[in-house]
Amino acid sequence: MKAHVTVTLKSSVLDPQGQTIHNALGKIGIEGVQAVRQGKYFLLNLSPALSQEAARAQVERIAREVLTNPVIEEFSYKLEE
Amino acid sequence: MKAHVTVTLKSSVLDPQGQTIHNALGKIGIEGVQAVRQGKYFLLNLSPALSQEAARAQVERIAREVLTNPVIEEFSYKLEE
Repeated sequence: MKAHVTVTLKSSVLDPQGQTIHNALGKIGIEGVQAVRQGKYFLLNLSPALSQEAARAQVERIAREVLTNPVIEEFSYKLEE
Repeated sequence: MKAHVTVTLKSSVLDPQGQTIHNALGKIGIEGVQAVRQGKYFLLNLSPALSQEAARAQVERIAREVLTNPVIEEFSYKLEE
């Protein structure tokens, strides 16, 4: 089983990296983008022995304790068989 | 319209950062994870004036020319209304 975890800055937190990418797009003539936010992505390969429920608990624990800084970031994830 | 772009290292490329996270999980007693790969995530807010097709073309261009290093990385994306 695989878990796709996305960690992003909370919307209240400034994202200078995304802002820089946004500016760069304008400079090379790419139109139609109103904002860019950057985050992190993690692909976790989980043991097939884990049940769906155990996998969910495990991924949430990993995201909360290891991958995310809860002061400024939030996470979402998706499981895939 | 929003585009969720995920940029990951090609599977043939070593990912020491993901490996480090994997090792850290073992050290704090989290079991059941076989591998971790790290990547980048970008959220693009696109102009609502863009058609689905134009948005697709725009996002692919941005991902190819700005967000991805094609030598070692690959991207995938998903549009959301």
